[in-house]
Amino acid sequence: MNSPGCQQANCSETLKEGMGLTPEGRRESRVCTVRVPINIALVKYWGKRDQTQNIPLNDSLSLTINSLHARTTLRVNYEIGTDSVKINGKSQTVTGSRYQRVFEEVRRWERKRKAGEVAEHPVSIQFEITSETNFPVSAGLASSAAGFAAIAECLQKIFGFTDSQKSQLARLGSGSAIRSIFGGLVRWRRGTQPNYEDSIAEQSFPSTHWPSLRALILVVDEGRKEYSSTDGMQRTVETSTLLERRIECCDVNIDKICAAFSNRDFSAMADMIMRDSNNFHAVCMDTSPPLMYLNDVSRTIIRLVHVYNEKNGSTVIAYTFDAGPNATLYLEEDTVQDFLDFATKQLRFAESAQTEVEEILGHKLDESVNNGALAQILQVIYSQVGGGPQLLSLH
Amino acid sequence: MNSPGCQQANCSETLKEGMGLTPEGRRESRVCTVRVPINIALVKYWGKRDQTQNIPLNDSLSLTINSLHARTTLRVNYEIGTDSVKINGKSQTVTGSRYQRVFEEVRRWERKRKAGEVAEHPVSIQFEITSETNFPVSAGLASSAAGFAAIAECLQKIFGFTDSQKSQLARLGSGSAIRSIFGGLVRWRRGTQPNYEDSIAEQSFPSTHWPSLRALILVVDEGRKEYSSTDGMQRTVETSTLLERRIECCDVNIDKICAAFSNRDFSAMADMIMRDSNNFHAVCMDTSPPLMYLNDVSRTIIRLVHVYNEKNGSTVIAYTFDAGPNATLYLEEDTVQDFLDFATKQLRFAESAQTEVEEILGHKLDESVNNGALAQILQVIYSQVGGGPQLLSLH
Repeated sequence: MNSPGCQQANCSETLKEGMGLTPEGRRESRVCTVRVPINIALVKYWGKRDQTQNIPLNDSLSLTINSLHARTTLRVNYEIGTDSVKINGKSQTVTGSRYQRVFEEVRRWERKRKAGEVAEHPVSIQFEITSETNFPVSAGLASSAAGFAAIAECLQKIFGFTDSQKSQLARLGSGSAIRSIFGGLVRWRRGTQPNYEDSIAEQSFPSTHWPSLRALILVVDEGRKEYSSTDGMQRTVETSTLLERRIECCDVNIDKICAAFSNRDFSAMADMIMRDSNNFHAVCMDTSPPLMYLNDVSRTIIRLVHVYNEKNGSTVIAYTFDAGPNATLYLEEDTVQDFLDFATKQLRFAESAQTEVEEILGHKLDESVNNGALAQILQVIYSQVGGGPQLLSLH
Repeated sequence: MNSPGCQQANCSETLKEGMGLTPEGRRESRVCTVRVPINIALVKYWGKRDQTQNIPLNDSLSLTINSLHARTTLRVNYEIGTDSVKINGKSQTVTGSRYQRVFEEVRRWERKRKAGEVAEHPVSIQFEITSETNFPVSAGLASSAAGFAAIAECLQKIFGFTDSQKSQLARLGSGSAIRSIFGGLVRWRRGTQPNYEDSIAEQSFPSTHWPSLRALILVVDEGRKEYSSTDGMQRTVETSTLLERRIECCDVNIDKICAAFSNRDFSAMADMIMRDSNNFHAVCMDTSPPLMYLNDVSRTIIRLVHVYNEKNGSTVIAYTFDAGPNATLYLEEDTVQDFLDFATKQLRFAESAQTEVEEILGHKLDESVNNGALAQILQVIYSQVGGGPQLLSLH
């Protein structure tokens, strides 16, 4: 298992300006490879005040899930050509896509920068991206957050952009990607400036502050989302009478979670995480027509967590659900074994998920665990949290 | 099928004061039998400002479902004895129950009234109730609303109480019962007086105003509720950050529904009914721990209704869900056939529910309709709406 730690250190390397030319006099291509984990919000982002720039109505807060990541290589060629993006071996449409928005922004910045210089070579830049995730993209596990954070990370390394510019590029690709550009507990500030320059991510605490924190993801459904987050949140903005009230409360909830994180007060943090998840799904329900992301299995998990906490006499596990039915459970390392023993008696696991649980527990499950056709939990992912981007190579 | 109409007329009869005595000099027993339909709210009641008196935080609005009713007989004996309540043949515990609260209130009023008279006979009153519902009480179909409204109706007839007193007695038994004491579109005003005297029901429109309105109830689950409405709404009051905003909007939504009802504008009314249902389940979700009354079948019905309306190009059917998974659909008579044809192709019906659908349609369903073990719809109830209490006998 990866050590989460604070991996920013090995990302401090960037190529300095003044790079070499090829024998033909062209600027040499540059290639950067990074690994960036997905993040799951503790206080969700839902609703934009600017749809093109992905500027949120509320601050959000997240932890990364170290074990689930995108490994992304970005190649920049200084020549005219067609941009290309390949995700898990599959070519993506670039024209009109979020990738194109990011590429165009970089070209715009480079043109602007070059305008003040004697430009011997016009700014012709071609981008080639290949990205692999170590989990199915269709599982609804925030893969685009990791992917666009990785692209932004590579762009920063190659072009020497500031952290603020990196935030901006990640956000242009996918709002929540902005929270994967740092490790630790990360806050995305909505910002108040008209030019959105202060809508950026910041690390509230390094992950080293609370090394025993873990995430346990129960994958319920590998199907595609019924509605995209982008469409869904816009519909909520247009029709919910409750969203405004949610927005008003997000900052207070983030402050409470940060205070609990600071004190390593799991119970207080968990309570706020669950309240925010439920509050988020409440405004989804208050949308017209309603956005219903949770299913009966999700709801069984919610009940199970409350029963488990009650049985324990204190809140030792928290659930949170993004715009989909999969559960992300946050807990401390010493709770995992007992909770899984409890959960396997209450939920049905697919055969492969059972194997995953057995690996985490280090022993076989007893035969009473139902592994019938009606399996509810398809996959179990256990992970450290709070890891940041890792630079794998740059040349 | 019952004609809904405005049946208040035949309830105008009440026994006048000065009743006979038995040969032994005791006042004669009195017996009243009424039939009162359940009601399903279009704008839900959720949250109390006084828990003992069942005083709501918001106004609510409902229509009765004529086909589902309680047939209730109340016998008043002027002697000392033990009160008794029998529902569908089963004796109920009276001590400490909501029945007792109603009985005690009547005794208190009678003592107060007698205090000003020369009381030859002390106020000894014994109550005997037998009530039958024409549907299973456990189906979560607002049976207590019909039952307590029937008790209040009988008490008014026997004791000559005012409408305001009748409201009060129904409400003491079960908040939503107050909306079954009238026919038509009924509003329960939360009231603003400290003594709650103005927290009463009123008829906004007689049902004759819109005779083509119908309800179609799809019974999804005959199981008991996971949490009682009383406990659930109290938990929402204590923990939801969104409830206050919901409360602020209820009056506006009621006004919109009343305006749409006045114009027989089904589409406008349906839109508000669905929004209120979703808004209600949103604040339930925003409760800690969350109240999750809808299940996957409920959500399938919600999606189905939106798809059907979209297919039609206008909103011709509305769903609403109380604190449980059963769907109440409101629609006009001429939509029923086409919607049921559509629904039977999309949902699975239990065998008995199929028979019910065939009776409504007047023809057999084709064999492609799935009636397998995984039946989702257990029962289908088709009804006129807006009927009021009917007096069956009084002596």
